[in-house]
Amino acid sequence: MNALPVVFMSDYGLGDEFVGVCHIVMANAGVEQVIDLTHSVAPQDVFHGAIVLSEAVQFMPRECVYLAVVDPGVGGSRRSVAIETEAGAYLVGPDNGLLSLAWEALGSAARVAEITSGDVMLSPVSATFHGRDIFAPAAAHLATGMALDDIGPALDPASLRSITIPSPLTASWAVGAEVLSVDRFGNVQLNVRPRDLETSGISGALVVDGRNLPLVLTFSDVGEGEAAAIFDSRGWLALIVNRGSAAETFGLATGSRVSLSRG
Amino acid sequence: MNALPVVFMSDYGLGDEFVGVCHIVMANAGVEQVIDLTHSVAPQDVFHGAIVLSEAVQFMPRECVYLAVVDPGVGGSRRSVAIETEAGAYLVGPDNGLLSLAWEALGSAARVAEITSGDVMLSPVSATFHGRDIFAPAAAHLATGMALDDIGPALDPASLRSITIPSPLTASWAVGAEVLSVDRFGNVQLNVRPRDLETSGISGALVVDGRNLPLVLTFSDVGEGEAAAIFDSRGWLALIVNRGSAAETFGLATGSRVSLSRG
Amino acid sequence: MNALPVVFMSDYGLGDEFVGVCHIVMANAGVEQVIDLTHSVAPQDVFHGAIVLSEAVQFMPRECVYLAVVDPGVGGSRRSVAIETEAGAYLVGPDNGLLSLAWEALGSAARVAEITSGDVMLSPVSATFHGRDIFAPAAAHLATGMALDDIGPALDPASLRSITIPSPLTASWAVGAEVLSVDRFGNVQLNVRPRDLETSGISGALVVDGRNLPLVLTFSDVGEGEAAAIFDSRGWLALIVNRGSAAETFGLATGSRVSLSRG
Repeated sequence: MNALPVVFMSDYGLGDEFVGVCHIVMANAGVEQVIDLTHSVAPQDVFHGAIVLSEAVQFMPRECVYLAVVDPGVGGSRRSVAIETEAGAYLVGPDNGLLSLAWEALGSAARVAEITSGDVMLSPVSATFHGRDIFAPAAAHLATGMALDDIGPALDPASLRSITIPSPLTASWAVGAEVLSVDRFGNVQLNVRPRDLETSGISGALVVDGRNLPLVLTFSDVGEGEAAAIFDSRGWLALIVNRGSAAETFGLATGSRVSLSRG
Repeated sequence: MNALPVVFMSDYGLGDEFVGVCHIVMANAGVEQVIDLTHSVAPQDVFHGAIVLSEAVQFMPRECVYLAVVDPGVGGSRRSVAIETEAGAYLVGPDNGLLSLAWEALGSAARVAEITSGDVMLSPVSATFHGRDIFAPAAAHLATGMALDDIGPALDPASLRSITIPSPLTASWAVGAEVLSVDRFGNVQLNVRPRDLETSGISGALVVDGRNLPLVLTFSDVGEGEAAAIFDSRGWLALIVNRGSAAETFGLATGSRVSLSRG
Repeated sequence: MNALPVVFMSDYGLGDEFVGVCHIVMANAGVEQVIDLTHSVAPQDVFHGAIVLSEAVQFMPRECVYLAVVDPGVGGSRRSVAIETEAGAYLVGPDNGLLSLAWEALGSAARVAEITSGDVMLSPVSATFHGRDIFAPAAAHLATGMALDDIGPALDPASLRSITIPSPLTASWAVGAEVLSVDRFGNVQLNVRPRDLETSGISGALVVDGRNLPLVLTFSDVGEGEAAAIFDSRGWLALIVNRGSAAETFGLATGSRVSLSRG
């Protein structure tokens, strides 16, 4: 194949044809391989989308185009951007922070263009579906060899909006954490890294909302139906229940606060 | 690639392997690129499927094969058809009206074959899964170069079943509309085009079920949580709530009746 | 294309990026075509996954790689395996029986390797996401030409775990059946083959939980809203309601027991 692969993430869901129409637009422009990272980002949750995208890029180091659309400000004043990273990958999406954790993971935003070219965008551009009319066409043109300069005028990378993952509150005996996400199996991902537990002197076991949990390496280290804490496949501390749902057991959802202390 | 791309739409959902098995059947016949338009057409809702398919074709003007399966009459007397349009695209599916809005959008059904060839269909043909046994194989054979004549005997295009989108009732002061669909974000699509509002002298603002709404160009023209009307990315009038659900706010679902008058 | 296609099945669902990340890992290793069979296998239901996979392989007879992940024992002592079948296809997944019905359908497991090579697995291997770190990489390497011997040490095929579909209880006048699955339309699949009805002398009509049903060839053989029994597209006896849900009508779910007798 000569075209670069496109990795596509959005909050469109699969309950409508939005994702499929973006695929059609890209196929029509000559793209041969589109990989759907996920379209189940929580609706309009830029923060959630930014985390998911940034954690994926490490598995796709070679040259490719990331197309990401979580865009509560569609049709407003936020800019549409195409970014070339130091690592050689491209990122396309709204300038609302969604892309920021990914370009950090890819070394930094080296060059940026605002997507304005009439040769790129579909005509007319709708006010509500920039994924189809602006972002998918821009991603497709970059994938099939158009130069970044031809997408639109250069922007100062320093002018891009960025977001940060909230740090947990750490004391010498406890951590005040927040739920970043809950997956299909009910596993609860917290904004806690190994160093945060070290700071608070927690190891081997911890107390979560008054409940004692072992810190284990794998699900099967505890019996069926038992709860534990684990560093998950993304490197975050997660609460799990072997063959059960930790979200249900602990009554937690995305954004919930959780206090951890020494077990 | 030498094979034509296949654009695949159905009401199979993704909760089973039906879609995946159709993909396997096509890959096995040499198809290299299948684009899933959507598989979330409301179950057995031919009308919904026909609208979704017809709105997608404008973004895929080059030669390709549309495979569409929404088929409440599977195993009954309805015919299985492959259609060549004036624009050069192929449409494959049941003869129940599902394909009709799409072939109109593509210029008309120029030639039609009934899918009957034993060289095309899988053997044995099940009574309940013609997507796998008849339609996917026919789409794959057309995509990989089989002539329409070899799919089965020619049918008169005028004998094909077709459907029409219900027109709204328009008076000089009001429009009696119907909800065509509700998307993941709760946006409510009505069977109303710009000319219908003109006929009724509505512009700038309207009253929907007794509630005053501005007619805006983009979501961010109203504050968070506020409702408005907008012409959506498909060209239909839609009721929206900025960062909220219009379907919930107005208590509307597909098929609901809505009265619009001057604001 | 030079790489073999990969057919991918899991219980990951599409509500997270797990499936997408596995796709990324495979694309990064040079795989050009991944066909998603389904990712809606009931969570951690190895039995359900084994049936779905085995029924799909008959439609993909040529050389390909099956990647299947339903893995309640992830991180525990169960082995990770790559299997070459007599028919030339490869199967990759956990050694928990998930692959067993598929290799039976493909003629038998001719050669087996335990996936242990550091050249294959991502590093570090997480304790919880072997789909990304072990199975997808192994499938990708086999698809792009790596020899089975280079995946890891050979295992005795006879040491692989396997599962069996429960047989119905048959008497000369009745069948004690079990629900294998319920699809999106509410059709209820039972563990009953044509020969089981023959054994019990049932033909033409049957009594299901006290209710009389005709045994028909197609949905439209009964009126709208009426129930019937049918041999479905997978060859299993299914309870159906024309344009309705048999699961709701009969109050049945996966695993439910159903008694059938002569109608």
